Amino acid sequence: MKQCAGKEIALKRVKISDSFWEEATKLVRKEVIPYQWKLLNDQVEDAAPSFCMRNFRIAGKVTEEKQKADLSNRQLEYTYRGFEVLPENQEMLKDEFYGFVFQDSDLYKWIEAAAYSLTGYPDPELEKTVDEAIDLVCRAQQENGYLDTYYIINGMSHIFTNLKDHHELYCMGHLIEAAIAYQEATGKDRLLQAAMRFADYVDSVFGPQEGKRKGYPGHEIAEMALLRLYEVTGEEKYRKLAQFFIDERGKKPWYWMQEPGYKAGDELRYAYNQSHLPVREQEEAVGHAVRAMYLYAGMADLARLTGDESLWNACRKLWDNTVNQKMYITGGIGAVSEGEAFSFAYDLPNDLAYAETCASVGLIFWAWRMLKQEARSEYADVMELALYNTVLAGMALDGKSFFYTNPLEVVPEACYRDVRKAHIKPVRQKWFGCACCPPNLARTIGSVGRYAFTENEHVFWVHLYVGAEITVNESPVRLTTGFPWKGEVKLNIGKDMEKEYSFAFRIPGWCEGYELTTGCKMQKEEKDGYLYLTRKWREGDEVRLQFPMSVTGVIANQMVREDIGKAAVKRGPLVYCLEEKDNGKNLHLLKVKLPLDAKEEEVFELDHFFIRICVPGIRYGLRRTKALYQAYEEEQTEDVILNYVPYFIWNNRGEGEMQVWTRY
Amino acid sequence: MKQCAGKEIALKRVKISDSFWEEATKLVRKEVIPYQWKLLNDQVEDAAPSFCMRNFRIAGKVTEEKQKADLSNRQLEYTYRGFEVLPENQEMLKDEFYGFVFQDSDLYKWIEAAAYSLTGYPDPELEKTVDEAIDLVCRAQQENGYLDTYYIINGMSHIFTNLKDHHELYCMGHLIEAAIAYQEATGKDRLLQAAMRFADYVDSVFGPQEGKRKGYPGHEIAEMALLRLYEVTGEEKYRKLAQFFIDERGKKPWYWMQEPGYKAGDELRYAYNQSHLPVREQEEAVGHAVRAMYLYAGMADLARLTGDESLWNACRKLWDNTVNQKMYITGGIGAVSEGEAFSFAYDLPNDLAYAETCASVGLIFWAWRMLKQEARSEYADVMELALYNTVLAGMALDGKSFFYTNPLEVVPEACYRDVRKAHIKPVRQKWFGCACCPPNLARTIGSVGRYAFTENEHVFWVHLYVGAEITVNESPVRLTTGFPWKGEVKLNIGKDMEKEYSFAFRIPGWCEGYELTTGCKMQKEEKDGYLYLTRKWREGDEVRLQFPMSVTGVIANQMVREDIGKAAVKRGPLVYCLEEKDNGKNLHLLKVKLPLDAKEEEVFELDHFFIRICVPGIRYGLRRTKALYQAYEEEQTEDVILNYVPYFIWNNRGEGEMQVWTRY
Repeated sequence: MKQCAGKEIALKRVKISDSFWEEATKLVRKEVIPYQWKLLNDQVEDAAPSFCMRNFRIAGKVTEEKQKADLSNRQLEYTYRGFEVLPENQEMLKDEFYGFVFQDSDLYKWIEAAAYSLTGYPDPELEKTVDEAIDLVCRAQQENGYLDTYYIINGMSHIFTNLKDHHELYCMGHLIEAAIAYQEATGKDRLLQAAMRFADYVDSVFGPQEGKRKGYPGHEIAEMALLRLYEVTGEEKYRKLAQFFIDERGKKPWYWMQEPGYKAGDELRYAYNQSHLPVREQEEAVGHAVRAMYLYAGMADLARLTGDESLWNACRKLWDNTVNQKMYITGGIGAVSEGEAFSFAYDLPNDLAYAETCASVGLIFWAWRMLKQEARSEYADVMELALYNTVLAGMALDGKSFFYTNPLEVVPEACYRDVRKAHIKPVRQKWFGCACCPPNLARTIGSVGRYAFTENEHVFWVHLYVGAEITVNESPVRLTTGFPWKGEVKLNIGKDMEKEYSFAFRIPGWCEGYELTTGCKMQKEEKDGYLYLTRKWREGDEVRLQFPMSVTGVIANQMVREDIGKAAVKRGPLVYCLEEKDNGKNLHLLKVKLPLDAKEEEVFELDHFFIRICVPGIRYGLRRTKALYQAYEEEQTEDVILNYVPYFIWNNRGEGEMQVWTRY
Repeated sequence: MKQCAGKEIALKRVKISDSFWEEATKLVRKEVIPYQWKLLNDQVEDAAPSFCMRNFRIAGKVTEEKQKADLSNRQLEYTYRGFEVLPENQEMLKDEFYGFVFQDSDLYKWIEAAAYSLTGYPDPELEKTVDEAIDLVCRAQQENGYLDTYYIINGMSHIFTNLKDHHELYCMGHLIEAAIAYQEATGKDRLLQAAMRFADYVDSVFGPQEGKRKGYPGHEIAEMALLRLYEVTGEEKYRKLAQFFIDERGKKPWYWMQEPGYKAGDELRYAYNQSHLPVREQEEAVGHAVRAMYLYAGMADLARLTGDESLWNACRKLWDNTVNQKMYITGGIGAVSEGEAFSFAYDLPNDLAYAETCASVGLIFWAWRMLKQEARSEYADVMELALYNTVLAGMALDGKSFFYTNPLEVVPEACYRDVRKAHIKPVRQKWFGCACCPPNLARTIGSVGRYAFTENEHVFWVHLYVGAEITVNESPVRLTTGFPWKGEVKLNIGKDMEKEYSFAFRIPGWCEGYELTTGCKMQKEEKDGYLYLTRKWREGDEVRLQFPMSVTGVIANQMVREDIGKAAVKRGPLVYCLEEKDNGKNLHLLKVKLPLDAKEEEVFELDHFFIRICVPGIRYGLRRTKALYQAYEEEQTEDVILNYVPYFIWNNRGEGEMQVWTRY
């Protein structure tokens, strides 16, 4: 019997009190959210215009005109233009849609991030800004509930004619997530009402009933969003709609073949959006990695909410395939740039890695939902790995620039001169034409408390060691941790509890054993990677846990050709890397001596505390020969100390080479 | 003072008598030439139609009509269609051009290959076929000499409006090469007259004189072809036109900017066709590798014919850059699939390598021209390397299938499942949509005698050890060799010579020392990698040379990141590789023990004799763990014997893994 890990805890109940995460959320609050708002309004001088808010304004006008004129439709030419319009020409623009077809979602993600920020840090000015943005969204909404500015502006007769490649249902998913977050943060439900009206309209168009269309989203997310909406509202229709989308996916003959854009042979590429097979028959993580994560997250939710074992089995198989065959050591997924997609098993090139920030965000979403269904630490281990490494690496330490892709090996010259690496940026960027990652990162960091804990009436689970204050079983509880630098965890109970209660602490997969110190008697049980401590807790009770964070040399499965003969360095939840800044150029000439004989150094650089790791190694001297090839001769070497820094800190000290995997 | 290596020897004078090359040329004669003729005529059932001969027929009709109607132009819609028309729909085709814009050149390359074959092996039936093809070519030619079916069919008003991307001057180059070869083979000059008429017309359009256009070829080859035409005919105008093309290239403002297709920013990509800089300022091999080779070959010819030192210096720098920073150990060049282009220095990925067969053919052309200007063995070493490895690998041992790209590491699954490797075919193909490589290979193998020897009135140079009979200084001479398997070389003089004469034997860069045995007295001198033996040769004189072919473990320059910690195996001129067939799957788990303690085995497989090399090595056992990552632990190994086969033989025994570079 598997044990589910209880339910989500409203973010409002969790007060983060953790210097590491307070710093990260502060960056989101002070830097990312204000900057992104400017961007959405085309107010950043040296960035491509977003047109996002502009699209909403134009759509609002269109909707208003229509209501006045009672026109049933407005027929404009299709005007999908991408970003080719320069800001100086903006006055020449007609009232047309500009940007990606999913441009609306940028605002929704921003609202969600702002909502999380408002939850912890009320800010009337920010709230007013959000309210105004919501007003624009609501003005754009059609009478029937439809809400996607691309089609409102371009002509409603084409709505839902290209589910495969356009993003109406995707935008609806983000709208729902934003609306719930904002309602939970502020109690205001105007956006939630709008989201529900849109969802109701979608429900009137799609479904198993005769006369309804049998389509489903090309880019998944509506599934998990609708299930969340169901959990929040209790409305069965949303669960049923999500279930319909999930059940319908991949059925033959494919729905996509009825769409006007269908071309013979397209069906060979349906794995791109995971519709190559019915979801219950899928065993291999394929296609666009972000889409895959969002789908699998929705599947896990549905399995939990319906008890559907066949769906859960598919989730398990896909999980196993993802984490044991297709995941970088950093928690990055999606090895291939083309299609931002999974490659085949064990194909994990370090220098060509795509490993999109959003895909690791999606992996966290999925892992957390697997966890809610089954309290096994392996899910939380992966959540922690993706969060502390790829997701955090996605943002600079000053919160002002971002990585879209997260390679494990970088030679800047190669990024500039090799078109195969055109997707690899050797330095973080201020913004991206396709601006999905920074706001996704902002909403994830802003809601880290959600992923850290779950509960039911008997147990409170600690999945991530995030310092926080929270009321558990009617008692204020304080969790203190030294993560990710120190493995100390302390739990303090603020008030006597009336009945027996368990705290379940995840025993991280990266530590061998742990030390438990308590001043009181309790039942202890280890199960599926969690330590369950049960007693009738009293005010003043304290639990201390020590998870030793030893430096470890890690090797990859030998089927990973790219990592053969190489080792990475890990410490606790963090993956480390070598940077040119500390180790000179030509990192490929270094070898690390195994087994590791490492030394830790506490440093304070870039206004941040972190732990550097020093490991004995060898540097091969560059031979002086000019020739490309020569007969073998023994190489000159010198003993050196390799200086490792946490991967998430890389490229905060200028451009240079970096590598995670080093020969041994 | 550099010594030039004399002049080309007419192929007619060289009778190949060498079991290795007789076999290769037989394949070209018996398999490749007849098969390609069928292809050019759309007579191969399971191959995409070429439309090449069809285009000539239609162009012939157009030309005839025009002559009748005295129409100055014929305006058809532009109809460049690629290959999307299936053979079953051919009857529906209108009289339109189909195929690539350079489709004509496929016929010219075929004629050239056929001409070389006729030189050694007269064949009245083949000659009749060629004559008929030439008749079609001549019928298509316009009154003014213009000859490119794409524009003849589509409308002459557009000729020479897209020199950058279209291939009229490229087709002219191949026409000239074919015409000269056929004239030399058969004495028939009808095609040569046509080629000269086309060249004369081009000369009337382009040139330094006022009123003429300042354009030059987007895809080079016309340069070296015109210089060859100059050498054959003595007509200065052809040299001057070639010189104009070479001098004009890369001058600012760029000619390309006047072409109708020019778009702002295009100039950032002119390195693609080596027009980013005036040629004398170029120091780095860049862009499309085949184009680069053809340009550099033309530059070397022009430097030789005009004594232009600045041009020669550019050739030297480009040579140095190519062979010391951008060449695979197999003589493959052009690492990048995108643009079929050179990457930056030392970027030589093995599994993603493009290394087009045609580019190595071009490298041979260039090396041979460098050699003619300067008798240094380094040029001939590279010529030998490219010929015996990449070029020969381009064709199956049965002559029936071909490689377009020549990777140094192949895992078939990766080629099928990783879009980044879509250009890598794990098995040779019967034919290619862009059919440049097989005919290029055919014409190169068919004229190997040309590259093997040069002469002047005092010296006969042996650059490649190809067994042959040839009249030197009025004496029949026989060269016998065991290459590429055995380093024995024997020279026999058939008749007394009247005056002193030198034979210059290349001392291959891959051997340390050699053994010389002669029965007579002579002067011996070593210079620039050649051994000059001089005497008044007598009938019955014999020279024996023994170049030891020892098995060598080779390492790459440490700046080549992809080869770090890896070794390749060479023996004599041949690079060896490991194949799955001999060594099992997962070749990446093998390690070779260095220094090499190799054993040679003579084997006879696939109806071919070759030498296999057996080297002690280690195989790492696949760990049984399912996890992708684990803490370091010592690996299980077993001693094994690694079985190496020559690289050019790979993939003749079914599909499987292959690698040239192995860890040591």
